[in-house]
Amino acid sequence: MTTAESKLDACIQACLDCLRDCEYCANACLSEDMVQMMAECIKRCRDCADTCALCARLMSRRSELHKQMCGVCAEACDRCANECGKHDDDHCQRCAESCRRCAQLCREMAA
Amino acid sequence: MTTAESKLDACIQACLDCLRDCEYCANACLSEDMVQMMAECIKRCRDCADTCALCARLMSRRSELHKQMCGVCAEACDRCANECGKHDDDHCQRCAESCRRCAQLCREMAA
Amino acid sequence: MTTAESKLDACIQACLDCLRDCEYCANACLSEDMVQMMAECIKRCRDCADTCALCARLMSRRSELHKQMCGVCAEACDRCANECGKHDDDHCQRCAESCRRCAQLCREMAA
Amino acid sequence: MTTAESKLDACIQACLDCLRDCEYCANACLSEDMVQMMAECIKRCRDCADTCALCARLMSRRSELHKQMCGVCAEACDRCANECGKHDDDHCQRCAESCRRCAQLCREMAA
Repeated sequence: MTTAESKLDACIQACLDCLRDCEYCANACLSEDMVQMMAECIKRCRDCADTCALCARLMSRRSELHKQMCGVCAEACDRCANECGKHDDDHCQRCAESCRRCAQLCREMAA
Repeated sequence: MTTAESKLDACIQACLDCLRDCEYCANACLSEDMVQMMAECIKRCRDCADTCALCARLMSRRSELHKQMCGVCAEACDRCANECGKHDDDHCQRCAESCRRCAQLCREMAA
Repeated sequence: MTTAESKLDACIQACLDCLRDCEYCANACLSEDMVQMMAECIKRCRDCADTCALCARLMSRRSELHKQMCGVCAEACDRCANECGKHDDDHCQRCAESCRRCAQLCREMAA
Repeated sequence: MTTAESKLDACIQACLDCLRDCEYCANACLSEDMVQMMAECIKRCRDCADTCALCARLMSRRSELHKQMCGVCAEACDRCANECGKHDDDHCQRCAESCRRCAQLCREMAA
């Protein structure tokens, strides 16, 4: 596998991990007693999950649009990491970590 | 256009309308003061929007899986209509109405 | 409804129409005798359908990412219109038309 | 982690792997000289990728619809494995293998 291919594979995997952790986090936030203070977190998790899903798919199919999509995805991940990072819940901390890793790899891919 | 084709077109359009209204409703619920009591509504709107999106796409591409997917979609729409129907907000009432119409057409398609 | 709201609604509807026509076109191309010469058309229809789907959803939920996504969507629509526009089939011509309209509205939204 | 949780995690991962391999396979088929004989393979890969994506997401968010969706997903995986399994290309063989594994785990989940 070339370096370019293995970078692409790592970014696809980061998007899929992030998608899974955002879905889990959004649902966990919606099941808490204090939903009110998690509202922004839920919104950003939804956007991030959706963006990661499409980004992973465009990369998997080697679409010519994948770089542009990686740019939007990095933005969605940053926004989600910034909000989730404020909350101490395990699911929020794990989600923020996945988002930060995904943002970094997407940003390199978009460059 | 044959009767079968126009039924399919009506069902596709009902799914796309429902997807749009569920997205709008979930976000409006997340922006309210009383997010807590809308948590179940938000969960069901998310599931319904996602299910309608895939269902509309499988029908648009005449996939052999479309009948099975219409069955799942009708279930998602029923669940969302039942919850949204309990709330007086305009976005909930409009969403419940779209869900009921979509459920009916999907159920006929699945039969 | 304000002018901004009705512009948003028109763009959402254009994305949903384009998604439906791209799905139909990709499948029709895959069912033709001359699939070979439609390969690029199929690729671009898939990317365009996926991009329109996410774009319509982010707009419907008033996501802060919607402008960026409209930029990617306009690009996907242009690419699809350019390829579909080369083919005489009804489904290609109809798809190209939906793509052009969607590209224009997305570009205005992204501005 | 409970047995139920680890089964769910394994099924989510199988869906995400299958989604990635179906996307790759569909695109590789579209880039071959003999697209014509791969047309059915491409159609089934698209349906399977889309179905796996939604299924993984509903499981990740612990949706009450996930069992029903796993049933549709198992069917999509079977159909894709049956077609891809006929072709000798590496991408088709790898895709068929991912589909068979995903079908099995989804079927257990749906039961």
